[in-house]
Amino acid sequence: MSALQLLGLAAGTITSITFLPQVIQIWKTKSAKDISMFMLMLLILGVSMWLTYGILVMDAAIIYTNSMVLIMSLIMLYFKVKFK
Amino acid sequence: MSALQLLGLAAGTITSITFLPQVIQIWKTKSAKDISMFMLMLLILGVSMWLTYGILVMDAAIIYTNSMVLIMSLIMLYFKVKFK
Repeated sequence: MSALQLLGLAAGTITSITFLPQVIQIWKTKSAKDISMFMLMLLILGVSMWLTYGILVMDAAIIYTNSMVLIMSLIMLYFKVKFK
Repeated sequence: MSALQLLGLAAGTITSITFLPQVIQIWKTKSAKDISMFMLMLLILGVSMWLTYGILVMDAAIIYTNSMVLIMSLIMLYFKVKFK
């Protein structure tokens, strides 16, 4: 694996776990007041499009990264609606 | 331009503006309590790596999208420190 591939893999891995601390924080505090609903909508829309793109070009890294972010985004949306 | 390229362009455009509503909301409410600091750190790290990757492979879409997200992330970090 080249240094470039390693960089892409590391970047994808970090992106895939980026929203995990946010999910945990909302879960612990039961508060999502400061999280923008419009931001969550754009995140879900954008990530769904990236996921579709990844499936169409059959790129495992794009599919994996965006699947993870989509799951986190949907949990954040659920928390946003539940905790306000 | 193919349908696939259009999808990638649209996905990139949406991702690049995803955090703008969040920046505006924090600015208006002067509150970033519910935003996870650890999430912001991972976002900035991940996006910086994607930006480096984009520069190395000379991909304009990756460079543009991640530059936009990096700017928004740094503004959110500034707000997080300023408003708590």
